[in-house]
Amino acid sequence: MPELRQDPVTKNWVVIAKERAKRPDDFIRKRSVAEPHVCPFDYGNESMTPPEVLAFRPENTLPNSPGWSVRVVPNKFPAFTPENGSETTMNNFYRLRKAYGAHEVVIHGPEHNLSLATYPNEQVAEVLRAYILRLRHHEEQPYGNYVQILINHGKEAGASLEHSHSQIFVTPIIPEVVRNELVGSASYYNENRRCVFCDMIEQERIISERLIDRTENYIVFSPFAAKLPFETWILPMHHQARFELLTDDNRYKLASIFKKTLQRFYIGLNDPPYNMYLHTSPRGYDKPESYHWHISIIPKLTIAAGFELSTGMWINITSPESSAAFLRNALD
Amino acid sequence: MPELRQDPVTKNWVVIAKERAKRPDDFIRKRSVAEPHVCPFDYGNESMTPPEVLAFRPENTLPNSPGWSVRVVPNKFPAFTPENGSETTMNNFYRLRKAYGAHEVVIHGPEHNLSLATYPNEQVAEVLRAYILRLRHHEEQPYGNYVQILINHGKEAGASLEHSHSQIFVTPIIPEVVRNELVGSASYYNENRRCVFCDMIEQERIISERLIDRTENYIVFSPFAAKLPFETWILPMHHQARFELLTDDNRYKLASIFKKTLQRFYIGLNDPPYNMYLHTSPRGYDKPESYHWHISIIPKLTIAAGFELSTGMWINITSPESSAAFLRNALD
Repeated sequence: MPELRQDPVTKNWVVIAKERAKRPDDFIRKRSVAEPHVCPFDYGNESMTPPEVLAFRPENTLPNSPGWSVRVVPNKFPAFTPENGSETTMNNFYRLRKAYGAHEVVIHGPEHNLSLATYPNEQVAEVLRAYILRLRHHEEQPYGNYVQILINHGKEAGASLEHSHSQIFVTPIIPEVVRNELVGSASYYNENRRCVFCDMIEQERIISERLIDRTENYIVFSPFAAKLPFETWILPMHHQARFELLTDDNRYKLASIFKKTLQRFYIGLNDPPYNMYLHTSPRGYDKPESYHWHISIIPKLTIAAGFELSTGMWINITSPESSAAFLRNALD
Repeated sequence: MPELRQDPVTKNWVVIAKERAKRPDDFIRKRSVAEPHVCPFDYGNESMTPPEVLAFRPENTLPNSPGWSVRVVPNKFPAFTPENGSETTMNNFYRLRKAYGAHEVVIHGPEHNLSLATYPNEQVAEVLRAYILRLRHHEEQPYGNYVQILINHGKEAGASLEHSHSQIFVTPIIPEVVRNELVGSASYYNENRRCVFCDMIEQERIISERLIDRTENYIVFSPFAAKLPFETWILPMHHQARFELLTDDNRYKLASIFKKTLQRFYIGLNDPPYNMYLHTSPRGYDKPESYHWHISIIPKLTIAAGFELSTGMWINITSPESSAAFLRNALD
């Protein structure tokens, strides 16, 4: 079982998930050889994954058989599992608990060689529908304190399978980065009686040099304090704390601009590896007026090294203004 | 000039260092070609770096000429510079200031193909002497609020030059990770009247399964909540908050166990890329009884992906107990 261990100095929790592991010997550096393998996310290989927990499929098809358009399955080597357990203290010093939660995979579609940048808009909208349904599901479970949806695209961005997919992590605690956003935005609201993200949207519209795209409903820009080259945010223009409250109409509109943004990367940077994540309000969060869901897309083009590891600070070697100009021009 | 920009939500600061940058076009994905180059850290190429700020060299040699054993130079593309400037606010919303501080390189020795795992102990002790002298120097400067010494070894760990070297970052703020350690250890001290690191050392001696090495003066172990496979800490057995207070005798003893630990990685994992960093008390820190300097060595064997980026949490796929057993057996 994966477990959570608390750093006795900082009080941060770390997941120790041996089940996902290689043996220590497997880490010995060697020339890597790409092995041909059978993809468990292709049609016909459904039995290679744990049984599906959600699938969009024609009524005349059986669960865990071909025919689906989007398929959600538990992760085979989960970092969080729905088995609870009380906290243990070792020698009254080290704190330890089970990594209570869930860990799932959203297979974006049956095509092995397409991704969200190349699937049609309708398919992207279906993936977003799966996000919404799983968010609603997990928020009703006892373990569902925070749901982190993300994509690791490409080997260099941490994907272990190349077939396009998202991951859903449900964690028993509000993770540090999300907590910092909640605390910071609540404090801004207390001071200004406005949502900091709404104010940021207004700034970006006025300044416009970090703007990448804009529709009536969504805005895409490189944030002022971008951590990494080409970091890109997508936000709804109108205040909304919870992603799962998206209407069908807005979901289609988001699919369109989300795909278009991914195309900018795909075309401008030649299908780079990237991480995408969705930050949305945790269940039962009592200050929805101060939080605003957003999508971040960060291509994996540089290496986070000793400085980032030792300080938690980032050094970005490209200004968000030049990143935005590049991505703006990539499509238009 | 590199600048610091504050994230308006979390209040964290990011360094935007365009001077270190490639142009956006340079990020377009291509097959990389290793270009042969002249190493600026080799003997005879001293003029390729900014003039040295410290060098251990025979008296009959000139500055910036061959003959040195350890050489410290400013980073050619600094992330922090000793030029000050007041904070600016843009539209009363975004906060911006110059990245005031320093950024230097410690060249570990003249040999292009040796590293701290393969240099003799005496050379490693000289590198540690350079750390101490630069720590003392920077702490006397107006910008010196925190000094972060670290190594990026190997391309995958972020090294842009393969010739063995350390980097010294002097930052105008106490970085997040260090602040968390200071706050956490001070709070532990307030509650227990003991240093949390001293108590951790005692625990690790008793439990012993995460122990890698031990001498009268130093202890080496994998921490209980290790963030990454093979994460390894070296701490002085006797309480000491400030690294630069190391006696010559203890510096030699540290050089010996530090080199031996790096050899465990070198031999056990076949010279893996790694990040090493030294956490020591900031200048003028008024609670030296609660903080304890330590060295962390983390080989770069896995990819920090969307989960780490979006949550700030780590998933470690190898238990520190098995990492420690592997490293223990790598040498003995």
